[in-house]
Amino acid sequence: MNVKLFDTTLRDGSQSENISFSVEDKLHIAHKLDEFGIHYIEGGWPGSNPKDMLFFKQVQKETFQNARIVAFGSTKHAKNPVENDPNIRALLEAETPIVSLFGKTWIYHVEYALRVSREENLHMIGESVATLKAHNREVIFDAEHFFDGYKDNPDYAMACIKSAEKAGADVIVLCDTNGGTLTHDIAKIVRAVKSAIKSPLGIHAHNDSELAVANSIEAVINGCEHVQGTINGYGERCGNANLCSIIPNLQLKAGYYCIPDENIKKLTALANYVSEIANLTLSNTMPYTGKSAFTHKGGVHVSAVMRKPECYEHISPEIVGNKRRVLISDLAGKSNILFKSSELGLDLTSDKERIPEIVKRLKELENEGYEFEAAESSLELLIKRMKHEFPNFFSIQGFRILNEKDENAEIRSEATVRAKVDGQEEHTAAEGVGPVNALDKALRRALTKFYPEIEEMKLSDYKVRVINAWAGTSAKVRVLIESTSHGKTWTTVGVSENIIEASWQALIDSISYFLMKRHQKRETLET
Amino acid sequence: MNVKLFDTTLRDGSQSENISFSVEDKLHIAHKLDEFGIHYIEGGWPGSNPKDMLFFKQVQKETFQNARIVAFGSTKHAKNPVENDPNIRALLEAETPIVSLFGKTWIYHVEYALRVSREENLHMIGESVATLKAHNREVIFDAEHFFDGYKDNPDYAMACIKSAEKAGADVIVLCDTNGGTLTHDIAKIVRAVKSAIKSPLGIHAHNDSELAVANSIEAVINGCEHVQGTINGYGERCGNANLCSIIPNLQLKAGYYCIPDENIKKLTALANYVSEIANLTLSNTMPYTGKSAFTHKGGVHVSAVMRKPECYEHISPEIVGNKRRVLISDLAGKSNILFKSSELGLDLTSDKERIPEIVKRLKELENEGYEFEAAESSLELLIKRMKHEFPNFFSIQGFRILNEKDENAEIRSEATVRAKVDGQEEHTAAEGVGPVNALDKALRRALTKFYPEIEEMKLSDYKVRVINAWAGTSAKVRVLIESTSHGKTWTTVGVSENIIEASWQALIDSISYFLMKRHQKRETLET
Repeated sequence: MNVKLFDTTLRDGSQSENISFSVEDKLHIAHKLDEFGIHYIEGGWPGSNPKDMLFFKQVQKETFQNARIVAFGSTKHAKNPVENDPNIRALLEAETPIVSLFGKTWIYHVEYALRVSREENLHMIGESVATLKAHNREVIFDAEHFFDGYKDNPDYAMACIKSAEKAGADVIVLCDTNGGTLTHDIAKIVRAVKSAIKSPLGIHAHNDSELAVANSIEAVINGCEHVQGTINGYGERCGNANLCSIIPNLQLKAGYYCIPDENIKKLTALANYVSEIANLTLSNTMPYTGKSAFTHKGGVHVSAVMRKPECYEHISPEIVGNKRRVLISDLAGKSNILFKSSELGLDLTSDKERIPEIVKRLKELENEGYEFEAAESSLELLIKRMKHEFPNFFSIQGFRILNEKDENAEIRSEATVRAKVDGQEEHTAAEGVGPVNALDKALRRALTKFYPEIEEMKLSDYKVRVINAWAGTSAKVRVLIESTSHGKTWTTVGVSENIIEASWQALIDSISYFLMKRHQKRETLET
Repeated sequence: MNVKLFDTTLRDGSQSENISFSVEDKLHIAHKLDEFGIHYIEGGWPGSNPKDMLFFKQVQKETFQNARIVAFGSTKHAKNPVENDPNIRALLEAETPIVSLFGKTWIYHVEYALRVSREENLHMIGESVATLKAHNREVIFDAEHFFDGYKDNPDYAMACIKSAEKAGADVIVLCDTNGGTLTHDIAKIVRAVKSAIKSPLGIHAHNDSELAVANSIEAVINGCEHVQGTINGYGERCGNANLCSIIPNLQLKAGYYCIPDENIKKLTALANYVSEIANLTLSNTMPYTGKSAFTHKGGVHVSAVMRKPECYEHISPEIVGNKRRVLISDLAGKSNILFKSSELGLDLTSDKERIPEIVKRLKELENEGYEFEAAESSLELLIKRMKHEFPNFFSIQGFRILNEKDENAEIRSEATVRAKVDGQEEHTAAEGVGPVNALDKALRRALTKFYPEIEEMKLSDYKVRVINAWAGTSAKVRVLIESTSHGKTWTTVGVSENIIEASWQALIDSISYFLMKRHQKRETLET
């Protein structure tokens, strides 16, 4: 059976604390959703702010393959004739083929939020739907607070959606707006509505009880054929239903068809893309798409997974474009190191006697706060150094960084570096926007003379995490630096109580790793 | 109806990527769980590592009010006589009143992981349970992979748990170990087992399909009376079922009794306490306990919530010890500022004409990367400064920080500060473990002469977030500093491309806020 997907990342998702999309961001995301196979993209609420209206202007110039753009808005205000109602007019001015219209179905809201009579509300719903239909819009009616309304007064809640159906609504979406409904109540109510309404039904769930995905799946199983949600479950309070879990649950497990099968493997990339634009770190533990979703730590699990992955994996990570990982931790041992090394292309079979030494050193470093899961390049360098296979590209005699600020003046940061390559010393200086940037610039200046290829790499991400935050400004920090060259990225780590020292370690590893890979490649090409 | 709660934060939870509890950590958490009303606390796997065995030795010296401690381990190995099996012996040596014993129920695992015959596995289960019972242990039998096993071969899966029941297991826990089972399958299988087994049933769910909470609730509704999970859903891969959502769902919504009613309001504090010890930030969007769980951003929601909170809240935040928040954002306006100000105890009613100016300034700062949700003290200072109500305790003429490192030497950080109070200048210097720590020390040295009370405050948390990480080492950073004095904490914020400048802003706000509150208090006391 087919299920239609309605994405509201750009509208409800942008209600998340800490999310603020620009019009450009929204257009980028819309194209990704389209490529992935989403059917409806809700772009915003044109009546609520000028930024959303601008989006609808811009999006008209764009072409989409699968998706159609939806404008969101409320039923008309009681006092206004429908054609002059600012909300309805804004919806029409957005010029989208589809409109998502929300109306009240819970008496409590009719009385306390709208402050109109029950009959008036039924009339507002019917007239608003009919007007939009008269303008040739496909109308999706969002029955706001439907489950709360139904539990309170099923007859009135049903009367509301029947008013929308009678006026010609194309889909009736049952919303659990406050996210408080339990799964078996969702199932029961959807079945009751299904038996009384002919229009196709949809579900819109929120995650306040940590049930949004289950509630959406149960609603589909019990008769809904349209599912609303957001990428990564972004949304107000605890978020909306997470399409990144709903889609694989429906398509890989429950036998429904949502998007072309070959697109499912874009799921992890899509989740990361949207979190990147939202400037939020995608949680490691995110089902299907998170970095830890197929990560094995315990020793028993690891040895079993290496033989038969199905032992501890509900699906193969490749299906959703994710991958299996194995952690180096005090719960594991030699088998993890072997797995990891072979993943990194390092052959330890001829160095078996070194493994206990490597495991010991890793445990020491992890105790100090290093973390190699996110910095596999530093791990690779460490193992190579312990195997004495790492060429010494340069050595550093020392550095100094001065930060100074005088009243009413901007802060200044200046660094000097003394580096040595093949016995030749370079002493360089640079200013930067901050101490680490100044250090980075001075170091590059010192090394570029010997290794001009360094200009091909750049630092693309800089992360700082305070490890023992309770120690205040003397807390230990972990710095992760991600670098990029010709589309390839690698991450290195540094740890210290001194943020300059931690950044320095990650910086040195980043450049060392780049030089190692470049020179390996050259050797390979030359031999 | 009563439901027993089984917490495995200390065992399965510690399988999370990035979690590593010390024995001390585990003891602290165990006491919090006990106070909260958890019935069973699974402390670790004594057979798997020395740290877990040490925990069981230590915990015997402790007293608990509600909870009993559980040791976890596997059934005996096929080759060993049960009394000599190292796993069973380690379980007995842990000397806990209760043992949680896991055994295989899925033929796939029996064949590929254990590599024994089906009959042998049944025998291993029965003999292991019987031996533990003979040593007077309460035995909780964890039927690993039960749902996958049942879907594959219901007769064999049932035979396994019947073997445990026959040998005297006190509870049979049905585990969805890989977290791949859909909610309606959980419900159906639990009903089938319930009709065939007399022992009390439990549920152990994982979150790989984002269904762990729903699966646990449905299992209870269909006959389980024992629920396993972890605080904040910590656990391997995507985590275990989150007890912090399961408990309020069961007790506030589904009519079950788990813990004393008055303890439910400790839920948010418990979630934060455990995340603090795990050194993980509790996700804002966590249902019930997250900072955003009762946070309102959209203008329509905010004005409705201010009149009637039930409009957009599934429960009152106070019930679970959380609180309502309103965000200052481009989606909102004056009503948010008024709500926030009155929350901060600032009276803006006599300054109504200043509100648009304040809203404008806040929007500018938020565009630059400031975030006041987490730093309300900086917001309070900002509003006071704009109202010209902020006393000038000190001014800073300037500072310098030198970081230097020479080959084979430790890095050194030294700061000098020039400060002025009442026309008198102080010029001080200090070394620190890093640049910000040196600056903090030099600044305190300069101000303590005039304000000795500064010694009563200390910096308790230091957080750094890179805002536009793609800019590498020239990215903008946001620094949050939390300070503490006599059990009260406050947080301030600074933003800059230069981490020293950002830290400086937060540091100055932190001390200014403390002095303001101290002097306000003195005034109040003196008048």
